Amino acid sequence: MEWEKMVERLTALLNNGKHSELRGALMMLNEVDIAHFMESLDKEKLLLCFRVLPKDISADVFTYMSGEQKQTLIESIGDNEIRSLIEDMFLDDTVDFLEELPANVVRRVLQNTSEEKRNLINQFFRYPENSAGSLMTIEYMELKTGLNVRQAMDLIRETGLDKETIYTLYIIDSARRLIGTIALRTLILSRDEVLIDSLMDTNIISVRTLDDQEKVAETVREYDLMTIPVVDNENRLVGIITADDIMDVIEEENTEDFEKMAALTPSEEEYLKTSPWKLAKNRMPWLLLLATVAIFTGMIITNYEDVLSTSAMGIVLTACIPMLMDTGGNCGAQASTLMIRGIALGEIEFKDIGRALWKEFRVALIVGAVLSVFTFLRVLLINHATVPVCLIVSGSLYCTVILAKALGCALPLTAKKLGFDPALMASPLITTIVDMTSLTIYFSIATAVMHQINV
Amino acid sequence: MEWEKMVERLTALLNNGKHSELRGALMMLNEVDIAHFMESLDKEKLLLCFRVLPKDISADVFTYMSGEQKQTLIESIGDNEIRSLIEDMFLDDTVDFLEELPANVVRRVLQNTSEEKRNLINQFFRYPENSAGSLMTIEYMELKTGLNVRQAMDLIRETGLDKETIYTLYIIDSARRLIGTIALRTLILSRDEVLIDSLMDTNIISVRTLDDQEKVAETVREYDLMTIPVVDNENRLVGIITADDIMDVIEEENTEDFEKMAALTPSEEEYLKTSPWKLAKNRMPWLLLLATVAIFTGMIITNYEDVLSTSAMGIVLTACIPMLMDTGGNCGAQASTLMIRGIALGEIEFKDIGRALWKEFRVALIVGAVLSVFTFLRVLLINHATVPVCLIVSGSLYCTVILAKALGCALPLTAKKLGFDPALMASPLITTIVDMTSLTIYFSIATAVMHQINV
Repeated sequence: MEWEKMVERLTALLNNGKHSELRGALMMLNEVDIAHFMESLDKEKLLLCFRVLPKDISADVFTYMSGEQKQTLIESIGDNEIRSLIEDMFLDDTVDFLEELPANVVRRVLQNTSEEKRNLINQFFRYPENSAGSLMTIEYMELKTGLNVRQAMDLIRETGLDKETIYTLYIIDSARRLIGTIALRTLILSRDEVLIDSLMDTNIISVRTLDDQEKVAETVREYDLMTIPVVDNENRLVGIITADDIMDVIEEENTEDFEKMAALTPSEEEYLKTSPWKLAKNRMPWLLLLATVAIFTGMIITNYEDVLSTSAMGIVLTACIPMLMDTGGNCGAQASTLMIRGIALGEIEFKDIGRALWKEFRVALIVGAVLSVFTFLRVLLINHATVPVCLIVSGSLYCTVILAKALGCALPLTAKKLGFDPALMASPLITTIVDMTSLTIYFSIATAVMHQINV
Repeated sequence: MEWEKMVERLTALLNNGKHSELRGALMMLNEVDIAHFMESLDKEKLLLCFRVLPKDISADVFTYMSGEQKQTLIESIGDNEIRSLIEDMFLDDTVDFLEELPANVVRRVLQNTSEEKRNLINQFFRYPENSAGSLMTIEYMELKTGLNVRQAMDLIRETGLDKETIYTLYIIDSARRLIGTIALRTLILSRDEVLIDSLMDTNIISVRTLDDQEKVAETVREYDLMTIPVVDNENRLVGIITADDIMDVIEEENTEDFEKMAALTPSEEEYLKTSPWKLAKNRMPWLLLLATVAIFTGMIITNYEDVLSTSAMGIVLTACIPMLMDTGGNCGAQASTLMIRGIALGEIEFKDIGRALWKEFRVALIVGAVLSVFTFLRVLLINHATVPVCLIVSGSLYCTVILAKALGCALPLTAKKLGFDPALMASPLITTIVDMTSLTIYFSIATAVMHQINV
C-alpha cells in the first residue's frame, strides 16, 4: 500500500516537472527501490528521472535496473554521461551489464571508457561464464606485509572509499601472493604500533579464478564467509567475491536444478520476458526424447496383446496401468529428488550408494506394503476383480515401488560419479524408465498367472 | 588429498597422546575444518580433542559440529565446561543447538547457564520456528543518538569484541526505537567531532520478529544486504540477522520446495541420518492420495471398454496410453516448475496470470504441433495403424499438451492467490489431474471417430 502511494507521489512530481522536489523525494529511497520505480517509466521519463538523480547514487541505481531499461538508457544518454557512469560503477557490475548488451552498444560503451578500465573489462571478459573470475570484483582493500596498525588504518582512510568492502583486508607479499587476511574489527581493536603481520590470519580460505561458481557458493556457505578471495594459479590475489553475489549464485544454481529436473533446458531469462518460441525451444528436446522412449513402452503393451484381449481380466489390467505408472513415477521422483538435493548440499556422495540403496530398499518395503494392500482391496472391492487379478496388480505394484526407489536412488549418484549433472536423472527420465520396466513386470506376472489358471 | 594427509597427521598426534602438538596443529585449521575432523572421532577421542582446543575457539568449533556429536559431547563434559561453553557461544547458535537436543539434556544445559543468558534463551524459544525472531542474534552493536564519531569509535573498541558484527552500527533513540544505521566504513572515513546523527542512513530496511524467514531472505537478497535489523511492533530494535544465516535459509527453503514438488513431506533432517520409517512416513500421504485419485483414471478407462475391446484399434489405443500420460505429465511439469520458481523468486505474481496463460497457450501450440506430427508419423509407420487411429492419437496429444500447459500455469498461481504453497501444485499432482482429463479427451475422440466410421 505504502509503496503504491509513493509511486503515485513520485509520478506526480515527475509529470509536473518538479525536478528539485523529485530529486529530494528519490533521495529518501533505497537505490533498489528507485530502480524498481524507474522500471515502469517510458523512455523519455526514464531519462528525465535518471538525470535528476544525484551523481553519487546514479551508478548504483543503474546497477539495479533491468537489462532492457539499462539498454534504453545507454542508447539515450550522451557519451560524457556514459563515461562518468562507467567510471562510478563497480567493475563486476560493469562486466555483468556489458554481457547483457548487444555488440554495437558494447562498442559504444567501451569507446567511452578510460583505457585503464577498458583493459580491466577485457581481462574480465576472458574468464568463462559462471567461473569465480567472472563473479569477482577487483575493488578490494589490500595491504602490504610489514605495515603497522596505524599505517594500515591511514591507508584504509585514504583509499577505502572506492572499495566494495573494507571489512576484510588482504595482506600480500612483494610478489602479490596472498599471505593472510585481517578483519577490520581486529585492526580497530588493536594498538597503533602493532605490526599487521602479527594480527593476520594465515589460514586462508580462497578459490581460484577458474573454479565454478557452484564450488564458490559451497565454500562460502560451508565456512560462513562474508567475502572470499580469488587467487590465480600462482596464489596471487586477483579479486574478491562478496556474499550478496553468492546469494544470487545460490538461487541461480537452484533454478537451474529445478529446470533440469522438470525436463527443461536451463535459461537465465525471466519467464515473462522470454518469447514463446524460446520457451518452446527450451522444452522440445526433452519432450521429444521422452516421447521417443515412450514408443518402447507402447511396444511392450502391444507385445502382450493376448493378455489384454482376454476380456475377463484385460480391461481391469488396462484400467490399472495409469495407477501403476503414476505410483512408479512418484516413488522414483521422491527418491531421486532426495539424492539430487543431498548431492547438491554435499550431504551424499557416490561412496554412500550402498547405504542409500539399503535405506531405499527398506523404505520401499514399507511403502510398497501399504500401497499394495490398499490397491489389492480397491481392485477387489471397487473393480470387483478376481483374487488372481488383484494379486497381479498389487504384486506388480510392490515390485514397481522397489524398482522405482532403487533407480531413483542409483541413477543420480551414478550420474554424479560419471561426471554428468545428477539433476538430469530426475522425475521425467526416471518415470519413463520405470514405466517400461514396471509394465514389463506387470505383463510378465499377468501372463504367468494366466497360463497357470488356464493349465 | 591434502585434507586426508592432515587428518592422518592429526589422528597420529591424537593417538600418541601428544596434546600440545595436537593443539598447535589444530590451531592451524579453520573452525569449520576442526569440527569436520572431529566428526569421525569416537566419544573418548572427541572429548580429548575438544579439551585440547584453546578456550577461545572451542565454542566456535562446537557451533559447527553435527547435532549428534554436540549431544555426545554435552553428555560427557562437566557442568563447569558446559557453563563456559554456553557463555562463549553466540545466542542464536545456542538457541539452534538447544532446539536439536532432547528435553533432559536441554534442562541440564539451562541449569548451567547464567540467569541472564537463560532468560534470553527462553525469550528466543517463544518465537515461532522459521520466524525472523528465531533466526536473529542479539550480539549487534547499537549506538545512542547524539554521540560523535570519536565517542562511537571508543564504544566500539570497548564492546565490539563480543558482537557478531560491528560493520553496521544501529542508532537507537531513548525509547530503543531504531532510527538509523551507519556503516563502520562511514565512521572510519569521518572526522572525530562529527555527530553520528548527521552520518546515519535513515532509510532503514528492516523486518519484524514474526516475519517468515522466506520473507527475510527475499528482502536481504533484493537489497544486497550483509545484515538486516529485526524490530518489534513498536519499531524497537531487538536483533539482527547476518548474511551467512540467510544463505542457509535460502538453501533450506529451496530444499523444502524441491521436496514438496516431488510429493514429499518436507523434512529438515539429513537423508543418511533419517530412519527408513521416518522416510516412509514422509512419502506415504502423497502416494496414497495420488493412488486414490488414480482410481478415477482407471474408472475412465473401464468406462470406455467398448472402444478398447474393438480389437482393430483397441490395442494401438492402449499402447499409446503411456506416451500420452507421460507427455502430458512432462508438459505440465515444465509449465508448473517455471511458475513455482518465478513465484519463489518474485518474478511472477497472480496478476500476471493472463499474460502467463497466453504465453503458455502459444508455447503449447508450437510444442503440441511438433509432438503431434512426430506421433502421427510414428503411429502410422511403426504401429502400422490406420489414418483415423493416427488422427485420434495425435489429436488427443495436441489437446493434452494445451491442457497440461494451461493447468501447469494456472494451478500454482491460483494456489498462491488462495494462500496455499504453490510448490504443492507441482508435477505429481498436475500429472495425475492431466492423466484423468487427457484420457477422457482421448477416449471421447476415439468413441466419436469410431461411431463416425461405423455409421
